[in-house]
Amino acid sequence: MSEAPDRGPRRRLRVVGIGSGGLDQITVEGIDVLRASDYAIAAVKGPDDPLVDFRRRLLARHAPGVELVGVTDPERDRSSSSTSSPSGYRGVVLDWHEARSLAWEHALESRPGDVAIPVWGDPAFYDSTLRIVDRIAERGRLDVDVEVIPGISALQVLAARHRLVLHEIGGTVTVTTGRRLREVVAAGADNVVVMLNADLPLEDLADWHIWWGGNLGDAGETLVAGRVGDVLPDLRAHRDRLRADYGWVMDVYMLRRDEGTQT
Amino acid sequence: MSEAPDRGPRRRLRVVGIGSGGLDQITVEGIDVLRASDYAIAAVKGPDDPLVDFRRRLLARHAPGVELVGVTDPERDRSSSSTSSPSGYRGVVLDWHEARSLAWEHALESRPGDVAIPVWGDPAFYDSTLRIVDRIAERGRLDVDVEVIPGISALQVLAARHRLVLHEIGGTVTVTTGRRLREVVAAGADNVVVMLNADLPLEDLADWHIWWGGNLGDAGETLVAGRVGDVLPDLRAHRDRLRADYGWVMDVYMLRRDEGTQT
Repeated sequence: MSEAPDRGPRRRLRVVGIGSGGLDQITVEGIDVLRASDYAIAAVKGPDDPLVDFRRRLLARHAPGVELVGVTDPERDRSSSSTSSPSGYRGVVLDWHEARSLAWEHALESRPGDVAIPVWGDPAFYDSTLRIVDRIAERGRLDVDVEVIPGISALQVLAARHRLVLHEIGGTVTVTTGRRLREVVAAGADNVVVMLNADLPLEDLADWHIWWGGNLGDAGETLVAGRVGDVLPDLRAHRDRLRADYGWVMDVYMLRRDEGTQT
Repeated sequence: MSEAPDRGPRRRLRVVGIGSGGLDQITVEGIDVLRASDYAIAAVKGPDDPLVDFRRRLLARHAPGVELVGVTDPERDRSSSSTSSPSGYRGVVLDWHEARSLAWEHALESRPGDVAIPVWGDPAFYDSTLRIVDRIAERGRLDVDVEVIPGISALQVLAARHRLVLHEIGGTVTVTTGRRLREVVAAGADNVVVMLNADLPLEDLADWHIWWGGNLGDAGETLVAGRVGDVLPDLRAHRDRLRADYGWVMDVYMLRRDEGTQT
């Protein structure tokens, strides 16, 4: 790999988890990093992206004067032929990571300085930012030093709102996606947190207990707990209502096979 | 259940996750709750409990004037006859929760006001505070309103330090204890985070990849990553060194069955 001059000076890229429960769920160390950065960047998915607007308000509140530079997000291929199999899904996601990392690299090249990348929730759970930043580092055209500041994940907001410990005493909790729920249950998991839900594939789990949260941390925040078979119609109605009233719905839930003594 | 007068006025008990990465890993909302409380309480395990000292420093920095009231922790039965089976372990833990909740209830009765309970890490993962507070609420002698403020868990600090996403794309991560690791691996888990380790039972996982962190967030913080078979002797040496140098060792690690393309 060729050396320094054309790569420019070493840049700090700091990925900052900003939480998922409003403007004040960021940590003190997260705020310090925002303030110490020359600017922040974020993917922009459209003209009125609510998550971009949230980041601007976060910066105005905790790091005034630090500008948010938007990077237009490449289109992601959502055709069913390419995403119906797990390997097809993974391939589509990898292509999209590559396109996004090139767009980000271009934005970084056109503007010098140390950069904060504010990430909704925690970069360690179901977020693509670290994979994209890793691609930039691997490609080697920019000399970047990557650091990560953890943030509160939506699964922790769910647990807090329901006052849950996510596992039984000395036990195990499995975190997965709606897409993988069936295989996790078949493998014997008793405590499961499910994120990234296109729908609620819970018909055959009627006797499990569920703690559900919709649009956590936002004005529409809705909590439901109960036996799956009893509350599933309500959950579907809440999802429809949130989408109608707020333009988006994002939910996360905890499932427990045996209600037991833990609630 | 008898009504108000002898239960006293309604009390706010707020369980606040304070993070596990130093004094500034607490969230802004966590600080707001500390400041709005009449006092804070914490279990005291001995005359020089480092976690009590940490909480005092946290309060002095972020909520000066809010006093930390220590509650002496009841002894926990650690005899091997009572803890060698999982059900024996659970029974011992439940007895200890009962004793601890009585000690806390007594402390709350003897001093009125709204109380913050600062918890290392996140109350949702491997922490007994919520179970103890639930027992106080169930017993009904005090009228308490319980609220939870999430905090950064050690597993997130581990992920951040190693710049890890904790699962493969669209995948699953299992969080468990050293005690349960064998059964989780046998059930087919590919990505496992292990907390609460008495030792490192990894001999038969030589080909897995490990990302390990010892005494995260403290002066002795140590990070190691590699193939289990290659680094296990180093990890054992680090555990011994940390215990000798700092008087305690606490570690957490991520295991991945197939190294693949994710690092």
